Amino acid sequence: MNPSGSTDAGSLEAMVRQVIGHQDGSRFVEILPQLSDDLNEVDAVIQEALRSTYPFLTEAANYATASGGKRLRPLVILVVYRGLTSDATKPVHPLAAAFQLIHTASLVHDDLIDHAPLRRGKPSVHEAFGLPTAIVAGDYLFVRAFQLAGRYSPEVIQRCGDASADLALGEVMQENSRFDLSIDRERYLRIVTLKTANAIAAGAEAAAMVARAEPRVIRSLGEYGQALGIAFQLKDDALDMYGESDVTGKPLLSDLREGLPTLPSILAYQRLSDREREEFERLFTLRHKRQAHLLRLKELCDTAGVREPVEREAEKWVATAIEALHAIPPSPFRDLLEAVASGSIQRKV
Amino acid sequence: MNPSGSTDAGSLEAMVRQVIGHQDGSRFVEILPQLSDDLNEVDAVIQEALRSTYPFLTEAANYATASGGKRLRPLVILVVYRGLTSDATKPVHPLAAAFQLIHTASLVHDDLIDHAPLRRGKPSVHEAFGLPTAIVAGDYLFVRAFQLAGRYSPEVIQRCGDASADLALGEVMQENSRFDLSIDRERYLRIVTLKTANAIAAGAEAAAMVARAEPRVIRSLGEYGQALGIAFQLKDDALDMYGESDVTGKPLLSDLREGLPTLPSILAYQRLSDREREEFERLFTLRHKRQAHLLRLKELCDTAGVREPVEREAEKWVATAIEALHAIPPSPFRDLLEAVASGSIQRKV
Repeated sequence: MNPSGSTDAGSLEAMVRQVIGHQDGSRFVEILPQLSDDLNEVDAVIQEALRSTYPFLTEAANYATASGGKRLRPLVILVVYRGLTSDATKPVHPLAAAFQLIHTASLVHDDLIDHAPLRRGKPSVHEAFGLPTAIVAGDYLFVRAFQLAGRYSPEVIQRCGDASADLALGEVMQENSRFDLSIDRERYLRIVTLKTANAIAAGAEAAAMVARAEPRVIRSLGEYGQALGIAFQLKDDALDMYGESDVTGKPLLSDLREGLPTLPSILAYQRLSDREREEFERLFTLRHKRQAHLLRLKELCDTAGVREPVEREAEKWVATAIEALHAIPPSPFRDLLEAVASGSIQRKV
Repeated sequence: MNPSGSTDAGSLEAMVRQVIGHQDGSRFVEILPQLSDDLNEVDAVIQEALRSTYPFLTEAANYATASGGKRLRPLVILVVYRGLTSDATKPVHPLAAAFQLIHTASLVHDDLIDHAPLRRGKPSVHEAFGLPTAIVAGDYLFVRAFQLAGRYSPEVIQRCGDASADLALGEVMQENSRFDLSIDRERYLRIVTLKTANAIAAGAEAAAMVARAEPRVIRSLGEYGQALGIAFQLKDDALDMYGESDVTGKPLLSDLREGLPTLPSILAYQRLSDREREEFERLFTLRHKRQAHLLRLKELCDTAGVREPVEREAEKWVATAIEALHAIPPSPFRDLLEAVASGSIQRKV
C-alpha cells in the first residue's frame, strides 16, 4: 500500500481478507466503507506528520511506512473505536497513525539489529538508505509518533510511551537471548509480549480510552490485544520456519540463521535426544551458517515434532483473545475483531 | 556526575564554573542552593524514568546519562524558569529531565553514526554495550523523555517533539555533507541550528511556557537559546581542532578524520590557494586518514588563518544571545544566563 494511494472499500476488503484469512468476509461489507475512510484518514495523518524541510529524511521515512504490511495495529485501533462509540468529536486517526509509526520505527531499528536484508519483499531501510539514515529515520518516526500521541490525554500518552519502552526492552532481551537455547517457553512469551503484544494491547486500550469506555472494557480490550499479539507473533515465528518465501516476502529460516530462539527451536531443543540436542546446539550457535546447516536444523525441529504444539499454543491465545471480547457489546465491529484474532494464525503472509 | 550522587552547592558551583568559564561566579552564590536542589530533583526524575524491569537496559541507559557532561540544557531550563516565576505549583524538573534525555539519546545514536570511540573520556555506549543495545538504549531514552514531556501542555509537547525532529534532520543533513567541502557557512549554520541550537531554544521556550511567560518573552528566550546553541557548537568544533584531548575527554581532529565539514575546514577550503585547496580536499576526503594526514589538514587550516574568524563568528552569536535577554527583568538568574552565554566560548572542555 503506497501511502499516497487511497484505500477504497475493495482494496480494504482485500486487506481485511489478508488479516482474517479464509473466513467469510461478506458479513463485514456494511462497515467496510467507514473503515476504508478511516484508513485513508490515517494515511493522510501519517503523510502530513512525516513532511520535513529535508526531503531526504522524508523520503526514507516514507519508504519505511510505504512498505505497507498488514496494518494490523491501526486496523485494530479503528475497529475498537468504532465498535465502542459513534461520537466523532475526538478523532481516533492520529492515535492509529501514532501506533503505526511506532511499529514502523521499531521495525526499521530491528531490521538493522537483525541484519535483515528484506522487509516485505523490498530492501530494508538500512539496505536502501544506509545505517546512519536508518538510525535517524527510526528516531524521526518515533518522534513524529509521540507528537501525534501528544494530542490526547496524559493517560493515553503514557500508555503509548510504555508500549514503546516495552518494544525497546523486548528487543534488548531478544538480543541477549541470541544463541541461547536454554531460554524456556515463559521467557520466550515474555519477550513476545514486550516486543509485539504490548503495543497491540496498548493501541486497543488507548482507542477504548479515546472512546471513553469504562475501565472494565478498557482492560478487556487490552487483554484482547495482548493475546492477539502473542498469537500473531507465534504465527510469524512459525511462518519463518514453515512459510513460503515468495508469499511472506522474507527469506525463510532467518531466526535459525540469526540464532534467535523462537518456540519451535526452544521446543526442539527440549525434546530431542541427547545426541541430536548436541548437534542442534552446535549448529544453532554457529555465527555463520550455510544453507545445509539451516536445513538440518529445520529437519531436527521436524524430528522433534514441534509444529503441532506451536500451533496449539497459538490457538490457545486466539481463544483467550476472543474470550476477552465478551466485555463489549455485539456488533459487526466486534465480529471483525474476532475474525482478526482467528485469522491471525490462519494467514500465509 | 554520577546520577546516584547528589549535587551540593559546592559541586554545582564547580559545574557552573565549567559553564561560565573564567568569569566571576561569586555573584551567583545566593541562587546556587536553589539550583542545586533543582538539579538533584532532575537527576531523581531521570533515574526514576529509566528504571525498567530489565536491568541490562537500565544499566545502558544510566551509563549514557551518567557520563554527565556540562548539563547545559537542564541548567538553562531551570535558570530560565526560576528567573521568570517563583510559583512552584507546576514543577519544571520533568521538563529539564526530558530535554536532558533527548540530548543523551541523540548523543548515543550520533556516536554510533560517527564511529566515536569515546564520550567524555569514557567508551561511548556502542563501544561499551555493542551496536544493538546502543540503538535500543537511544530509543528507550527518547521514549522516556517523551513520557516526561507528556505531563505538560500539548504546546510544550509539540515544541519538545519539533526539537527532537530537528535533531534527526540535522544529523541526516550532517551525514549527507560528509566529505563535502563545498557546503558554505550558511549551510553549516543550518545544520548546527538543527542539531544543537534548536533543542536548547526549545528548552528555554518550553521553560518559559511552563512559567506562564508572555509570548514576547517566550520568543526572546527562544532566540537566546538558539544563539547560545550556535555559539556553543562553534566552540565545540573549534575545541576539536584547538583543544587539549586530556581536557575535552575526546580525541582531537575527529571532525577532520570523519570528513565532517565544520566552520574551520569550510573557511580553510575557501581561503587556500588553488594548489593547497586541492591538497586539502584530497586529504579531507580520504576515508581512512593517518595521523600525518590529520596534522597536515590542521596545518593547512592554520595557513588559511581560520581560527580568528571562527572565534569572531562565535562572539557574534554570544552577543545575539545576551541581547535577547533584555526581554526579561534583571535578576541573578538573568545574570547567570548571560554568564552562560559568555562562558560558552571561553571554556576549554
